[in-house]
Amino acid sequence: VRNLKLLLAYDGTDFHGWQVQPDRPTIQGLLAGAIERVTGERTLPQGSGRTDAGVHALGQVASVAIASPIPFQNLSIALNDTLPAAIRVLSVEEAPADFHARHAAQAKTYQYRIYRGAICPPFVARYVYHHPYPLDEPAMMAAAAVVEGEHDFTSFAAADQDRTAREEGEPADNVRTIYTSRWRREGEELVYEVRGNGFLHHMVRNLVGTFLLAGKGKVDSAGVRRILEARDRSLAGATAPASGLFLISVEY
Amino acid sequence: VRNLKLLLAYDGTDFHGWQVQPDRPTIQGLLAGAIERVTGERTLPQGSGRTDAGVHALGQVASVAIASPIPFQNLSIALNDTLPAAIRVLSVEEAPADFHARHAAQAKTYQYRIYRGAICPPFVARYVYHHPYPLDEPAMMAAAAVVEGEHDFTSFAAADQDRTAREEGEPADNVRTIYTSRWRREGEELVYEVRGNGFLHHMVRNLVGTFLLAGKGKVDSAGVRRILEARDRSLAGATAPASGLFLISVEY
Repeated sequence: VRNLKLLLAYDGTDFHGWQVQPDRPTIQGLLAGAIERVTGERTLPQGSGRTDAGVHALGQVASVAIASPIPFQNLSIALNDTLPAAIRVLSVEEAPADFHARHAAQAKTYQYRIYRGAICPPFVARYVYHHPYPLDEPAMMAAAAVVEGEHDFTSFAAADQDRTAREEGEPADNVRTIYTSRWRREGEELVYEVRGNGFLHHMVRNLVGTFLLAGKGKVDSAGVRRILEARDRSLAGATAPASGLFLISVEY
Repeated sequence: VRNLKLLLAYDGTDFHGWQVQPDRPTIQGLLAGAIERVTGERTLPQGSGRTDAGVHALGQVASVAIASPIPFQNLSIALNDTLPAAIRVLSVEEAPADFHARHAAQAKTYQYRIYRGAICPPFVARYVYHHPYPLDEPAMMAAAAVVEGEHDFTSFAAADQDRTAREEGEPADNVRTIYTSRWRREGEELVYEVRGNGFLHHMVRNLVGTFLLAGKGKVDSAGVRRILEARDRSLAGATAPASGLFLISVEY
């Protein structure tokens, strides 16, 4: 048995998120199906974390143990021949026997993309949140800086407690460290990039929803600090749409 | 009654082409539905030409007569609010009373995009034909030059005669003039751009299929010239997949 580390990219638009579900197409379920088709082995690849329905990935990592001696290059090609074009295996490499994509993750980077132009091109619409209305972008940049550092992010956790049920190996509290939290302009897009040692369910989308409140002048950065310190989900902004969110990379 | 000229962009992946069909989503059908919803008027917008299922447009043009006095800017916003995000109205302007998007078209430009890298990114897959196998690109460039000029393009017309039934206002023969026909590299993509005074049904995709034969060493440019001169559809290459084709612009 070899323990494999898979690097994956996907367009999440047409899937019901990462986690396997009966009778619904999910990334984990389709990947498990492709592995079974190629190797004959029933396994459940473990992702670095769940991504929600509609969320994309440029660099999701999964671990899976297989007995088949198939060379990595052939496995990668065979999986890509079997998977839909919206899910790609970018690389396959052998990992230590105890490597687990979720437990071993040290840091993750996400991006959230907002399209600011009046008309969103149809070829971009699946990969952004289209927000053509006025936004105070410097205020959003100031608000984003507030959450850098180690904080209790309860205010930005998913409101639905069922869905925040922690997975094995995750910290038992809502304290996480954010290394960088920054907005930048890329042409017509306003791009948020956040890197941290871990993220609560819906945390990036709830942070973005709160920065959007700052962009609309409804809170300032001192207000975002008060929301953070209150540890009260009801104070933060609405969860931003899934289409703008990308899991960029996972560090080990 | 005003006669309007609409500029449209669409991601054709999830539609059954331009032309209205009962019980199937088409660009023309959805646009007619949006116009009716916004203005209360039943009309059928006329496109510069039909695009097939899966074919995209950056600059399709349609003409439509409406009685509503709604300002153009408001009409454009209301149509985009009503249409799916995969279809966008880029602009609306008033045209002369006798303007007809198909009859008045003087020239069109299409692009065909081939992704050459080993793994096609999921965010690109809908907008290219993925062909990672060896291709003699200089041979394809030489073959493309052969079709420039005025020729009878019967060899590159759709094999299905029903589907080549000409629309009103189109030339009665298969003679068309191609002003430019060129391949170029854009990073991992090999891009064909063709501009001409008119195109037969499937003509661009059949030309690309034939240039792919040249890329695979199965014909040379003299062979492509013989295929063109034979006026025999059975000699040309297979119709290339729809996903790589874009209608770029229409000139009047």
